[in-house]
Amino acid sequence: LTTKAATKRKMVAKLTEQERCEKLQPLLDAGWTLVEGRDAIYKEFQLKDFNQAFSLMTGVALLAEKINHHPEWFNCYNKVQVTLSTHDVNGLSSQDIRMANYLEAQVKLLN
Amino acid sequence: LTTKAATKRKMVAKLTEQERCEKLQPLLDAGWTLVEGRDAIYKEFQLKDFNQAFSLMTGVALLAEKINHHPEWFNCYNKVQVTLSTHDVNGLSSQDIRMANYLEAQVKLLN
Amino acid sequence: LTTKAATKRKMVAKLTEQERCEKLQPLLDAGWTLVEGRDAIYKEFQLKDFNQAFSLMTGVALLAEKINHHPEWFNCYNKVQVTLSTHDVNGLSSQDIRMANYLEAQVKLLN
Amino acid sequence: LTTKAATKRKMVAKLTEQERCEKLQPLLDAGWTLVEGRDAIYKEFQLKDFNQAFSLMTGVALLAEKINHHPEWFNCYNKVQVTLSTHDVNGLSSQDIRMANYLEAQVKLLN
Repeated sequence: LTTKAATKRKMVAKLTEQERCEKLQPLLDAGWTLVEGRDAIYKEFQLKDFNQAFSLMTGVALLAEKINHHPEWFNCYNKVQVTLSTHDVNGLSSQDIRMANYLEAQVKLLN
Repeated sequence: LTTKAATKRKMVAKLTEQERCEKLQPLLDAGWTLVEGRDAIYKEFQLKDFNQAFSLMTGVALLAEKINHHPEWFNCYNKVQVTLSTHDVNGLSSQDIRMANYLEAQVKLLN
Repeated sequence: LTTKAATKRKMVAKLTEQERCEKLQPLLDAGWTLVEGRDAIYKEFQLKDFNQAFSLMTGVALLAEKINHHPEWFNCYNKVQVTLSTHDVNGLSSQDIRMANYLEAQVKLLN
Repeated sequence: LTTKAATKRKMVAKLTEQERCEKLQPLLDAGWTLVEGRDAIYKEFQLKDFNQAFSLMTGVALLAEKINHHPEWFNCYNKVQVTLSTHDVNGLSSQDIRMANYLEAQVKLLN
């Protein structure tokens, strides 16, 4: 298990400049914004109602456990505000990109 | 609370013949089937993966608590099998129609 | 449905002074705090891990849909911060008490 | 990813006779039963209500995605019936033990 944990940790690295161009920029173009004072991204989603908002949140929660990467998020009725950052690298990693892309795809389905 | 419960119970009635034509038939056309030996309907849904299947189930669960009407359901990975019937009327009611229509709409979004 | 909605709205009223003593005070004693500048209550819960935190949140979400009363909440891993207030009465109502009591009971089970 | 998948597959093996004594027997003593005609285990849980049943199911779903091991399960209101087996090894593995132990611990908390 120690080896496995070590392997997992190695797999997550801060985004390189090239990855920021190729993977982060499309998310910024889609409405994600860089958080002031931290290397993190943020977006607010509006769903149809609470049913849809919490269905979305459940899918995000399942992904979070699967990839061991958890969002900071706020919900009020149909509104979901998500902040993503990777504690282990003190900034953005491919884990954040993956979760943001999941959110983009899932919200597109639900809205 | 007793009055409220009584009111709720009165609101649920077995589907009339006309309602069966207008509201049940479209569901049967969409792949729901009548269960043998009971006045109940059944359909199996295939989602993309477990993430989508359980996101769907969460939305159904939220609706179930909202309208106090719960499915009998089975899940295995991306498959969700749902049986609907209304215990209080010993058969199909508008509650079952509402839940089936929710499932139809939500699965259409997610698939 | 209009009548039903009207009935529901009537059922929710701002807490009276007596209700604040009898129902709100025990929650304040249990760690809920009054929010500055609004008639709302707030508490942060720490669960064992994300699995427990989101299991809790799902139970809260199911209750929220059942009683049509939704929290403002923030989650990060095992931490759940909840703010409760009733929009319709512009302050605290019995709905908030019910949800806070659910949270107290459920967190006691899970921790 | 192929290597990672291969590694994961290797990690899951059918329970040895010794593991059956040490890890499976305590579950059978706790009410799990062997399914006829398959190397699988089954148990029915009764929760307080649907809220508790689906809160439990959400925790199980989160674990399922985390360890990539999914139950076959049926729910009706406060009843949750769970069948566990590991497709990859055509029988019981440590994954099933882990999930069964999660269920035992979580149901103990919630009931």
